[in-house]
Amino acid sequence: MVKVTVWNENRHEQKNPVVRDIYPEGIHGAISSFLKGEKVLVKTATLDEPEHGLSDAVLNDTDVLIWWGHLAHDEVSDEIVEKVKQRVLEGMGLIVLHSGHFSKIFKSLMGTTCDLKWREADDKERLWVIDPSHPIVEGIGEFIELEKEEMYGEHFDIPAPEQLIFMSWFEGGEVFRSGCTYQRGNGKIFYFRPGHETYPTYHNEEIQQVIKNAVNWVAPTKRDYPVYGNAKPLEEIKPKN
Amino acid sequence: MVKVTVWNENRHEQKNPVVRDIYPEGIHGAISSFLKGEKVLVKTATLDEPEHGLSDAVLNDTDVLIWWGHLAHDEVSDEIVEKVKQRVLEGMGLIVLHSGHFSKIFKSLMGTTCDLKWREADDKERLWVIDPSHPIVEGIGEFIELEKEEMYGEHFDIPAPEQLIFMSWFEGGEVFRSGCTYQRGNGKIFYFRPGHETYPTYHNEEIQQVIKNAVNWVAPTKRDYPVYGNAKPLEEIKPKN
Amino acid sequence: MVKVTVWNENRHEQKNPVVRDIYPEGIHGAISSFLKGEKVLVKTATLDEPEHGLSDAVLNDTDVLIWWGHLAHDEVSDEIVEKVKQRVLEGMGLIVLHSGHFSKIFKSLMGTTCDLKWREADDKERLWVIDPSHPIVEGIGEFIELEKEEMYGEHFDIPAPEQLIFMSWFEGGEVFRSGCTYQRGNGKIFYFRPGHETYPTYHNEEIQQVIKNAVNWVAPTKRDYPVYGNAKPLEEIKPKN
Amino acid sequence: MVKVTVWNENRHEQKNPVVRDIYPEGIHGAISSFLKGEKVLVKTATLDEPEHGLSDAVLNDTDVLIWWGHLAHDEVSDEIVEKVKQRVLEGMGLIVLHSGHFSKIFKSLMGTTCDLKWREADDKERLWVIDPSHPIVEGIGEFIELEKEEMYGEHFDIPAPEQLIFMSWFEGGEVFRSGCTYQRGNGKIFYFRPGHETYPTYHNEEIQQVIKNAVNWVAPTKRDYPVYGNAKPLEEIKPKN
Repeated sequence: MVKVTVWNENRHEQKNPVVRDIYPEGIHGAISSFLKGEKVLVKTATLDEPEHGLSDAVLNDTDVLIWWGHLAHDEVSDEIVEKVKQRVLEGMGLIVLHSGHFSKIFKSLMGTTCDLKWREADDKERLWVIDPSHPIVEGIGEFIELEKEEMYGEHFDIPAPEQLIFMSWFEGGEVFRSGCTYQRGNGKIFYFRPGHETYPTYHNEEIQQVIKNAVNWVAPTKRDYPVYGNAKPLEEIKPKN
Repeated sequence: MVKVTVWNENRHEQKNPVVRDIYPEGIHGAISSFLKGEKVLVKTATLDEPEHGLSDAVLNDTDVLIWWGHLAHDEVSDEIVEKVKQRVLEGMGLIVLHSGHFSKIFKSLMGTTCDLKWREADDKERLWVIDPSHPIVEGIGEFIELEKEEMYGEHFDIPAPEQLIFMSWFEGGEVFRSGCTYQRGNGKIFYFRPGHETYPTYHNEEIQQVIKNAVNWVAPTKRDYPVYGNAKPLEEIKPKN
Repeated sequence: MVKVTVWNENRHEQKNPVVRDIYPEGIHGAISSFLKGEKVLVKTATLDEPEHGLSDAVLNDTDVLIWWGHLAHDEVSDEIVEKVKQRVLEGMGLIVLHSGHFSKIFKSLMGTTCDLKWREADDKERLWVIDPSHPIVEGIGEFIELEKEEMYGEHFDIPAPEQLIFMSWFEGGEVFRSGCTYQRGNGKIFYFRPGHETYPTYHNEEIQQVIKNAVNWVAPTKRDYPVYGNAKPLEEIKPKN
Repeated sequence: MVKVTVWNENRHEQKNPVVRDIYPEGIHGAISSFLKGEKVLVKTATLDEPEHGLSDAVLNDTDVLIWWGHLAHDEVSDEIVEKVKQRVLEGMGLIVLHSGHFSKIFKSLMGTTCDLKWREADDKERLWVIDPSHPIVEGIGEFIELEKEEMYGEHFDIPAPEQLIFMSWFEGGEVFRSGCTYQRGNGKIFYFRPGHETYPTYHNEEIQQVIKNAVNWVAPTKRDYPVYGNAKPLEEIKPKN
């Protein structure tokens, strides 16, 4: 049983009827709805809840955190971001979606600006599978096509992904590394590009399948946290033979 | 249910009573014995069987192939090696153990000499975990200690591992990249260093745990094989919107 | 002084007046012409010369080999390919251009099929810079645009590049990893996609700049070849203090 | 001409006569002394100078920054760290030495705790070359041996190095990834482990050679900084053909 918490800024849904029509339960509601199943237990959390819905109790009971934010990255408290980061380094999986590239948590884990090019012009997007043997693309065809999406273009200022899963083609002429994995401390991270709030991207079944696969991929590996600091001589622990 | 075939050269066991005492059922017997379980179905195959035990029927019914060879790499037929390679590129997982670094199949998939330094002098070996978030080290402590093993030392002439899971320390002064993953085509590969035939390494429970974990990690991802070759215009397939 | 040998199949130039018009001195002639300079010494070699122009004397006097082939990969002798591979593993740099993805030497060093999608339909190509800090993109803008090129599309069946320098966008809807580096043994390899024989790609100054940069990047590192094989105890060489 | 600034905390040298005897001009003095040459221009900067010696004027005139710190990481001002980080992301090379693994600048660029095991017990250290084709090991033999050093052991909590150049063996039984490269934004980073203040490590000629090589490797690539943000349609810039 993987315990997933879907975090959403949940502001566009309050302000913009276009977004509310697409996601009447919020983006977090849509994502939690397709994730729920036999092997996954899902909670949601949003920016305007106390502690952004991410109390110690919630974080300590979360195996995988999904993050969608856009307008209000600056309103996320540094203290909560620091706690989330600690949990990722301890092993909690993290899936960062779309405009989450500019969230404090993602920038802090990447160490770079995470900047990119963007354009809202109803570009068609094709996400090509680059890494066919990766569990994140199980059940996915050669590419996923989204009729209309916001364009994100290179250069995307991230560390070179440890595994590059998807590359996007945009009608207007750009490309983008749109599915990227990282390991940081004991935790695994997946960045997945699609999901601008004014398009029904999270209703697309292949996009849903990728996120389901990613939940399993980023789920924690069970083992003790490494020991750091001043080390005794190993010979004191185990005598030489 | 993951279908595993354990391939062993099975020559040392015929010639050397020391080896036979340690592995009375052969190295393949020892490995298949600890792998068998609810979720894994195990077969064995050896060099001196017809087609080295790797007929098309066997290969096509294998999800994960484990390879142990040493004395007789040259006796493995090029035709069989080519078939195994095709199966790996199609998605069959491959675990190469110890002296299998010099097997035709490993060298062919790596593209390098796969050469290294070695010494048989009862060196103590410690395999330190380098990648704590990787599923292959689930349940493993900070390091695995083997009282006596053959030494393998750098430089190990392999492509830089995509994921470096273990690094070995040897009593005599050398280090070695002893747990390495690769993805080739649709297949996943794990090279795991320990297992010289004159030591009871495959009876060590932590070594067994690593191999069990690796079986799951290299198991195939279920999706269609990519389409290659002359491509129709995408616009003929899906009209522009 | 970097000693470069430009190898070309040189068959299209003999058969196809379109190609001959674009490259009257052959593709090898065009490439060697822009490479020549104060710090680079250039030779050429072609398929139909004795030993394909790649005698031991030539190979041993080559720091960087550039490879363009397409129609006649099968006519390149296995013996010469093996010698080239040995030289790369010893440290000779290798730049593989365009349809060289299917050459024996590239497939042998990669260990995969190196297959891809292709289409000859005058697609516009944009090569976006993905790795802005890499010496291979020195002096290059955000992207290189080629008005017409052959399309190469993913999935490209190569090992994940160690460094992904360029990603191509094609007008017809595909993307491609078009600038990829690898290290194999003591040698460095750069694969660079553009250069279909019926387009004037190698007359493009930015394409030329990339190849010039790549020559410097793949040039050998000066140090002794590693020692492999049966190792003496280090303690015999240097006593314990 | 590469412009190098060697930054040193310069506190041990003031407090500890053992360190002052080994490095009478300070660690920064020793490093700048062996770096000076025809192609390198060297300045130094230390913690207790105004702005830690890293004014905007100095940073803007620095191609490569070398960083040694240990006791007083917390005394480095966040504002200066942020400026250094910006310069690295813009292209300034960064070489982080030894206990600099715990500096604010390194942790901020890595995104992890950068924690490790350590022991001061005069362990012998051998740094084995793992990546023989890398320019950073030019002129270096199979390993560098240091008679006595502080031990650093795995797990080292860093992102997987993009290139792993050296692995250390320690007499007490540990291993460590002791030469690691990263690219962040437009900048290149090299972490190099040796150099505890109570040992004469920076007087070792092979260690000096590695740092000299690293200066050239991390030096900036000359090209325009990428453009980020709201993108015009490419079709407005270059009409479709």
